[in-house]
Amino acid sequence: MSDGSVKSLNGSANKPHERLAAHLAAGMEAVNVLIRERMASKHAPRIPEVTQHLVEAGGKRLRPMLTLAAAELCGYEGPYHVHLAATVEFIHTATLLHDDVVDESEKRRGRPTANLLWDNKSSVLVGDYLFSRSFQLMVETGNLRVLDILANASATIAEGEVLQLTAAQDLATTEAIYLQVVRGKTAALFSAATEVGGVIAGAPEAQVKALYDYGDALGIAFQIVDDLLDYKGFSGATGKNIGDDFRERKLTLPVIKAVALADAEERAFWSRTIEKGDQRDGDLEHAIDLLEKHGALEAARQDALGYAAKGCAALQAMPEHPLREMLESLAEFVVSRIS
Amino acid sequence: MSDGSVKSLNGSANKPHERLAAHLAAGMEAVNVLIRERMASKHAPRIPEVTQHLVEAGGKRLRPMLTLAAAELCGYEGPYHVHLAATVEFIHTATLLHDDVVDESEKRRGRPTANLLWDNKSSVLVGDYLFSRSFQLMVETGNLRVLDILANASATIAEGEVLQLTAAQDLATTEAIYLQVVRGKTAALFSAATEVGGVIAGAPEAQVKALYDYGDALGIAFQIVDDLLDYKGFSGATGKNIGDDFRERKLTLPVIKAVALADAEERAFWSRTIEKGDQRDGDLEHAIDLLEKHGALEAARQDALGYAAKGCAALQAMPEHPLREMLESLAEFVVSRIS
Repeated sequence: MSDGSVKSLNGSANKPHERLAAHLAAGMEAVNVLIRERMASKHAPRIPEVTQHLVEAGGKRLRPMLTLAAAELCGYEGPYHVHLAATVEFIHTATLLHDDVVDESEKRRGRPTANLLWDNKSSVLVGDYLFSRSFQLMVETGNLRVLDILANASATIAEGEVLQLTAAQDLATTEAIYLQVVRGKTAALFSAATEVGGVIAGAPEAQVKALYDYGDALGIAFQIVDDLLDYKGFSGATGKNIGDDFRERKLTLPVIKAVALADAEERAFWSRTIEKGDQRDGDLEHAIDLLEKHGALEAARQDALGYAAKGCAALQAMPEHPLREMLESLAEFVVSRIS
Repeated sequence: MSDGSVKSLNGSANKPHERLAAHLAAGMEAVNVLIRERMASKHAPRIPEVTQHLVEAGGKRLRPMLTLAAAELCGYEGPYHVHLAATVEFIHTATLLHDDVVDESEKRRGRPTANLLWDNKSSVLVGDYLFSRSFQLMVETGNLRVLDILANASATIAEGEVLQLTAAQDLATTEAIYLQVVRGKTAALFSAATEVGGVIAGAPEAQVKALYDYGDALGIAFQIVDDLLDYKGFSGATGKNIGDDFRERKLTLPVIKAVALADAEERAFWSRTIEKGDQRDGDLEHAIDLLEKHGALEAARQDALGYAAKGCAALQAMPEHPLREMLESLAEFVVSRIS
C-alpha cells in the first residue's frame, strides 16, 4: 500500500484496510506483478507512461482486495482470484481516466490528472486499452459466469455515467435517481468485485448473494461519504479539491436533500449555481450554509451509516473467519471518515 | 443497407457488398433488430440519442456482414453468429465515437459527428456503454475461444490507436510501424469478424486461419485505400473532408513513402507541416504534388492491390460457395475505388 493511500484514510487508529492489506499481502503482491505485466505495451510507450502515473499515485487498491478477500473467505485455492482482482483494478483505472476527461478534472488523489499532463486523447485511448486488457484477463479464468457478472457491471457503470451526465444539473433529480447513478458509478464495481470472488470459489448461492449485497452496500456508503467529504472534508483527506462537485454542478445527495427543503429564494440559488452554472465568489460557502441549515449533511451521513450497517448484516451469511471481521470493520471504517 | 452506404460505394457497376447484403438479408435483419434492442437504455435517454444518430448515418455494415458470411461459409446453423455480428458492429461504433473525440473530427460519413452535436463527454461515455454492451453480447455465445479472439482484437485496436497518437507526427515512422497501426485501427476488427464466424461454426483450423488471413488482408487494403482517398478522392465518395489526415498531421502510407524519397527542401516542408503542425494556405496542394512527384500514391495503390490479392488467395482454403466468390469480389471491389 502506497503512502498516498495511507494518508487518504488517516485520522483513525483503526485501519481495517491496512489489516486487510497485511492479511492479503501475498495475493496482492501477485496482483501487482500481474498489473505491471499487463499494463505494459511492446509498441506504444505512451501507455506505460500514463498508467505508471496512475499506479504511482497509489490509491487504496480496495477493489482488488475485496476480490481476494471474498475468494479466500469462500475457501478458494486456485490461481484465478488474482486475475479477477487485477481485472477489477484495470476497470477501475480505465474508468478514472475517462472520468477525468468527462469531469475536466485537474486533480486526482492529490496529483495532476493524466489528461492535464498528457491530453484528453491519451486518457480516452489508454482507458480503452486498460478496458481491453481487463477483458483479456477475465477471459483467462475460463469462467463464463464471472464474465457475465463483469460484463453486466461494465454496462451498469457506463449507463450510470451517462445518466449522471444528464441528471447532474437537473434540480428534479430524486434520491432514487441519485441511487441509480451511484450504483452505476461506484457500487456496481464493488459488488462485482466481491461477487466474482465467491463465484470463482464455487461458493453456495446464499454466500454469493451475501457477497454481492455487501459490495453493493459498501459501494453506496463509500460514494455517499465521498460526496459528503466534497463539502465537509479537507483537501488532505481526500486528495480532491473541496467543492469540486459544486463547481462541476453535480447534484449529489446532500444537495438533493437541501433542494427538497428549499424555500423560493434558496431554490433560485440552486437553480442559478447548479442548473445554470452561474457561480460567483462566496457561492460555495453559501451552499454549505444551506446544507447545514437543512440538516442535509447529517441526513446523508445517516444514510451512509445505514448502508454500512446493511453491508455488515449481509456478511452474517458468510462463515466465521478473520476476513469476515475485517470486511465488517472496513464497512464501519468507511463511514468513520464522516464521524 | 442505407442510402448513405450505397452512395459511399457508388461508381462501379459491380457492387459485391450489395450482393452480400442481399444474400445475408435475413441474418442482417436479425442483427439490426438485436442492435436496436441492445443499444437502448432504460435509464439514460442520452444513449439512444447519440447511437441513433450513428445508426441513421448508415455505414456499410461491412464488419457484421463478414461475420455472417464466414459463419455461413462454414455451414453454421446456430443463432450466435447474429450476436457476434452485432458485437463487432458495437465495437466498431464505440471506436468511431472515441476516434471522433481523439481526432476532434467534425464530420463522419458526411454528417456532423456526435462530439460536435453533443459533447466529448457523451462520446466517451456512450462509447464505453457500447463496448460494455458488445461484451455482454459475446458472453451470451458461451464460447470462450470467441471471447479470447475478441478480447485480443480489442487490445490490438486500443494499442494501435495509442501508437498512432505518438507515431503520427514523427517523420521517422516507417512502413512497418504504419502497418502495425493499421492492423490495430482497422485490420484487427476485420480479421476478428471473419475468424469468430469460423470459430462459432466449429470450422477446421485451416479454414479458421484462412478466414483470419482474409480479414487481415482486406482490412489493410481497406485502410490503405482510405488513406489514399483522403488525398485523391472527393468528399462525396468517402464522406470525409479531403485532406483531413494532412490537417490532423497523420503520417499515412503515401506520406511515409514520399518522406523516404524527399530532398532537403521537401523534408523541411514535411517537417513544418506534419511534425510542427505549421500549415498555411496551399500546403495541402503542395503535399499532393509531392506525393504525385515521387509516385507515392501509385506505390501505395500497388500495396493495396497486393493485400487484396492476398485476401483472395487465402479464400482458396474455403469450400466452393457463392459467398466465397462474393468475398473475393469484395476484396477486389475495395481496391477498385482507387483504380
